[in-house]
Amino acid sequence: MHNPQLNKNGELAHLLSIEGLPKGILTQILDTAASFMEVSARDVKKVPLLRGKSVFNLFFENSTRTRTTFEIAAKRLSADVINLDINKSSTAKGETLLDTIDNLVAMHANLFVVRHASSGAPFLITEHLRRIGRDDVHVVNAGDGRHAHPTQGLLDMYTIRHYKKDFTQLTVAIVGDVLHSRVARSQIHALTTLGVPEIRVIAPKTLLPTAVERLGVRVFHDMKEGLRGVDVVMMLRLQSERMEGALLPSSQEYFKAFGLSPDKLALAKPDAIVMHPGPMNRGVEIDSAVADSGQAVILPQVTFGIAVRMAVMDILAGTQGAAE
Amino acid sequence: MHNPQLNKNGELAHLLSIEGLPKGILTQILDTAASFMEVSARDVKKVPLLRGKSVFNLFFENSTRTRTTFEIAAKRLSADVINLDINKSSTAKGETLLDTIDNLVAMHANLFVVRHASSGAPFLITEHLRRIGRDDVHVVNAGDGRHAHPTQGLLDMYTIRHYKKDFTQLTVAIVGDVLHSRVARSQIHALTTLGVPEIRVIAPKTLLPTAVERLGVRVFHDMKEGLRGVDVVMMLRLQSERMEGALLPSSQEYFKAFGLSPDKLALAKPDAIVMHPGPMNRGVEIDSAVADSGQAVILPQVTFGIAVRMAVMDILAGTQGAAE
Amino acid sequence: MHNPQLNKNGELAHLLSIEGLPKGILTQILDTAASFMEVSARDVKKVPLLRGKSVFNLFFENSTRTRTTFEIAAKRLSADVINLDINKSSTAKGETLLDTIDNLVAMHANLFVVRHASSGAPFLITEHLRRIGRDDVHVVNAGDGRHAHPTQGLLDMYTIRHYKKDFTQLTVAIVGDVLHSRVARSQIHALTTLGVPEIRVIAPKTLLPTAVERLGVRVFHDMKEGLRGVDVVMMLRLQSERMEGALLPSSQEYFKAFGLSPDKLALAKPDAIVMHPGPMNRGVEIDSAVADSGQAVILPQVTFGIAVRMAVMDILAGTQGAAE
Repeated sequence: MHNPQLNKNGELAHLLSIEGLPKGILTQILDTAASFMEVSARDVKKVPLLRGKSVFNLFFENSTRTRTTFEIAAKRLSADVINLDINKSSTAKGETLLDTIDNLVAMHANLFVVRHASSGAPFLITEHLRRIGRDDVHVVNAGDGRHAHPTQGLLDMYTIRHYKKDFTQLTVAIVGDVLHSRVARSQIHALTTLGVPEIRVIAPKTLLPTAVERLGVRVFHDMKEGLRGVDVVMMLRLQSERMEGALLPSSQEYFKAFGLSPDKLALAKPDAIVMHPGPMNRGVEIDSAVADSGQAVILPQVTFGIAVRMAVMDILAGTQGAAE
Repeated sequence: MHNPQLNKNGELAHLLSIEGLPKGILTQILDTAASFMEVSARDVKKVPLLRGKSVFNLFFENSTRTRTTFEIAAKRLSADVINLDINKSSTAKGETLLDTIDNLVAMHANLFVVRHASSGAPFLITEHLRRIGRDDVHVVNAGDGRHAHPTQGLLDMYTIRHYKKDFTQLTVAIVGDVLHSRVARSQIHALTTLGVPEIRVIAPKTLLPTAVERLGVRVFHDMKEGLRGVDVVMMLRLQSERMEGALLPSSQEYFKAFGLSPDKLALAKPDAIVMHPGPMNRGVEIDSAVADSGQAVILPQVTFGIAVRMAVMDILAGTQGAAE
Repeated sequence: MHNPQLNKNGELAHLLSIEGLPKGILTQILDTAASFMEVSARDVKKVPLLRGKSVFNLFFENSTRTRTTFEIAAKRLSADVINLDINKSSTAKGETLLDTIDNLVAMHANLFVVRHASSGAPFLITEHLRRIGRDDVHVVNAGDGRHAHPTQGLLDMYTIRHYKKDFTQLTVAIVGDVLHSRVARSQIHALTTLGVPEIRVIAPKTLLPTAVERLGVRVFHDMKEGLRGVDVVMMLRLQSERMEGALLPSSQEYFKAFGLSPDKLALAKPDAIVMHPGPMNRGVEIDSAVADSGQAVILPQVTFGIAVRMAVMDILAGTQGAAE
């Protein structure tokens, strides 16, 4: 079966999911991101790699935070960025998703950054682009349903590599609502591909997908047990709407069992790092004493995230664009 | 009577309506657009013709689609673009339209792209600019009420010229809700000015303005009759809200009588082209089999639309700006 | 006590309020603004002073008008501008204000333009930046609660200096809803610092803060008395919601007593100028005959406002940025 993310030369054509990406591509993205870290720290935070390219932020689901990171990344690459709030646009007038895409391609779009409530929407777009023969137009999945959020997964890998150097000696714990998290899936696939020997998930049964073990992870329902000796703690955000259903008792009880407090963190390795995709619910899944501690690398994650998004956009639309 | 769209040298100062524009101006716009077609296809889709100019998108009525086309066009000309969502701004605080304009002129605006629910609003603005002696500020009508949508009309003319070369041998049919369409009026005026000998309108009586014949068109209520032998079929969008009133029975019945299906299209010339201003209602005014066929030039219309908007902006604010 | 707006060298680090700014800083801003007046009048309205800098418009309270002036100013300085509509973003997901700021700082923000309904919110942000040691990130208050709106006060000072040259000979009247006006406070502090010998406030008792005299102003409840012999009339906007409460009888009665009509203005000096921060309520606080007269300098205020905002941004992020 062909890999919808790669072109016929095995190069990245779209970023849909970390699942199925070869280790070489992951490493290429992380290495390119490293070269961009220096750009954002400059006085003039700009490189002309995407000058005159048109990047469309297609957000079918509102996310100012994620949209902003892509907008900044694109502007630092000197692209022209068009933000489309799709709820208000043509789809509301009955136009189909693919008609919208066709229209934007006809306006000479180079790159679509797509956020959608439905899993698979970015994939549908890439299949359509393939069908109409437009291999010069690229798609980045900025979060689709419960499926994937690959740039988040990649910036997490960047963060781990930055602090821990070698993936092949690590024990990594992912804690929280794995069931509803597109981030967790991306993380597990990335960690596996990069050779992390032990990946743990720590969560109540109600917040785990059935048969999650098949992904190659060790499951813990007791957080203290699960954190023992880990190098990296990756916290997940708890959607407040989960509290309202029957899944969980209360945010206090959740915090008691699965919130990351200093005493629980003390069970991890002394130099363990703490990660969170943001925005944090302080006092729900993470204690402020941990979030603001020296072990937390939550804000560096954000910084790395800009560099990773610049890398992905440059690999997709910069390099290939030059050859168009 | 003076033509509010032209300056004292007979040059385009504002684009309000195709009605009243001399053939020379229409041709100038189409020729300039042709020179911009190449820019959008470049690797670096940018020319510095409006660098440092301030383009304000004043959308008193929401239209992400149209706003996007102007935003792209302005950015490819290197202008600074400011999007103003006017529903939320000062007019909501009781400021009048002309006070808003005065304020933006005081901020050194060069070009206003105006979308308004009221016919004539862009004209009011140009009259005000004339009164205060600001002939260095220009207005483009991006759709006002039922009145006009001149850049749509112009991109339609570009499309016809691209595929059919000579206007003076053509039979063109406009099909659908002519009554509520600002697009149809712009099209009829443009086709007439450019010398199309036979313009047909095809619609039920309830969707035609009274005395539409006075515009110089032939009226058909039977679509098969109306399409016979035409070179160009220009479909209009059917606003879904029309269905709810007494004007029309149902979308199925409308499709049966006035939807463009392959069998109806077969009555036109074999090389007839099919146009639509978008967004399409597939299965209402147009069959997908037609919309996706080789005769449809609906997506090229979108591509030409960017070039036409670049041309209009450059003619208004680029050239004159250089002489300011 | 240290001045939170100045760095250890006594230079402007943040613009929070005109209160507490030394005269030298005010004059520096006005002089820098004067140098930018020429830029906006150019054909290419752009200077590269903030090229590659990231300016974030953080509007926790909607104000298209003010946001637009900062966006234009930043773009004319060649900055990358990111507009964040914060109502829709992470704070809605339970993220705290300072977590949002931390995230944006991690994205390498250079300048925050902050509008907030709570007095002191911009100050909170600067204190946080100081705490985390980020003196390379700057804040401009674009209006916080009833507290301050310093760029409005500065552009007013620019306007007065432009028309009257010398502050030390002037009588200035501020008319209207001083109680609810963040503009009035900024104006009174600026006028005092720049040496205006007589500042008058004219308002009904219900629209004055208690003990307003302590700010060094003369209070008038009769507008005719208060306007006698003044050089400058600064009108305030009357928020329509004030009418609904018990504070005021009706807009007609308000206009009769405190609206600026030609006959009342006749009591001021013949060359008195009339100012208004906009948007105007014609027929409520100001008569159209005055607003559109030769004595009104309301639109020049807007023009000066762009130059003043460019000056503030350049002083904060341009100059210091170069030394980062």
